[in-house]
Amino acid sequence: MLVVIPLFPDFTALDAVGPYEVFRLLPGTEVVLVAACPGAVRADSRKLALTADRAFDEIDSCDVLVVPGGPGSRKPPDALVRWLQKVHPTTRWTTSVCTGALILGKAGILRGGMTATTHWAAADLLRAFGVEYSTERVVFQDKHRVATGAGVTSGIDFALTLAARLADEETAQAIQLVLQYDPQPPFDAGDPGRATPAVRERALDILHHLVPAVGLTGPTSGA
Amino acid sequence: MLVVIPLFPDFTALDAVGPYEVFRLLPGTEVVLVAACPGAVRADSRKLALTADRAFDEIDSCDVLVVPGGPGSRKPPDALVRWLQKVHPTTRWTTSVCTGALILGKAGILRGGMTATTHWAAADLLRAFGVEYSTERVVFQDKHRVATGAGVTSGIDFALTLAARLADEETAQAIQLVLQYDPQPPFDAGDPGRATPAVRERALDILHHLVPAVGLTGPTSGA
Repeated sequence: MLVVIPLFPDFTALDAVGPYEVFRLLPGTEVVLVAACPGAVRADSRKLALTADRAFDEIDSCDVLVVPGGPGSRKPPDALVRWLQKVHPTTRWTTSVCTGALILGKAGILRGGMTATTHWAAADLLRAFGVEYSTERVVFQDKHRVATGAGVTSGIDFALTLAARLADEETAQAIQLVLQYDPQPPFDAGDPGRATPAVRERALDILHHLVPAVGLTGPTSGA
Repeated sequence: MLVVIPLFPDFTALDAVGPYEVFRLLPGTEVVLVAACPGAVRADSRKLALTADRAFDEIDSCDVLVVPGGPGSRKPPDALVRWLQKVHPTTRWTTSVCTGALILGKAGILRGGMTATTHWAAADLLRAFGVEYSTERVVFQDKHRVATGAGVTSGIDFALTLAARLADEETAQAIQLVLQYDPQPPFDAGDPGRATPAVRERALDILHHLVPAVGLTGPTSGA
């Protein structure tokens, strides 16, 4: 089984590395990072780069596509969008984490009355593609072979859920145990509906600083 | 504030990228990935590489050291161990995620009756350094300026906890919200004490496959 994760400038590293870490532990599974050209691709912080080992034009098909998000999702490279349009018909599952859903939207992959999720602050940007935004953390649309995860860290929950479907629950649980994924966040502020207004304000400040050119959709979208 | 994350061959990517993603959102904080030489460093899967932007000998001091784990922790490069010994006295916090604790142990940083944590399957390897192994997910030893996280995904919980200490709780909560860290694992198998025996057996199979040369310490360590 081939899982392909495309990278693009200003992606968010954890969006990609969470699912990578799950799928690379799935027996019989190959994980490949791709980009327009092989080599280092800078993440949104500019402080980290992941290496793409293959170019888009080397991969014509795969079993699972995982599109990460990040500020770069607002203006995804044409080469990425065209490649997704080419590969999507070959997949068992075409998926996204965080604002990767906006790239699926741009590629026309979310058409047909689909429900999907994305980062809470990008809900309206997702709706602009005619998509029903869900506040669920992981949304599967079996009929469309599409699955989407919410912001950043949802990629781990999403990937474990998909691993169970691709293999079986015991295998997915073993991967969860290898990753010691027994989360114990020190605060209960990970959902916009439960964070305080002051925390939401601070989070939006940080997000606007990360995505200065395009802006986001306001604090109420995910509540 | 300078947060430095050293990379070495066969590190586990998520051990590094979880804390990176938290600290790079902390206002006024610089995050730098370092290695023996600048350039791409392959993770344990060989399917992913992170770019180190600086060499060990370019960094003489920092505020926070975050040492990831991975199979490569069993035989860490001498250059890494020596560099940790040099930089540790300058830090506010010297920390590890997963089996990064074994590297701290090798560098002599866990001496003095310390309690620490690591990946559940490496508990006995940690005890071999004369350390009290804790099943807690995040262990702070304030007197020693040392903090350790359990396996892989604990790095996110650890980093949010430390972010609150370095800044304040509201800032850490805003980062949690930016990362939409509202974990909803599909299974309750992330702790060795709650996973079924069959799942633990499968997890150890996967781990032994990842670390074929050295082996691990048996299924009961973290229970």
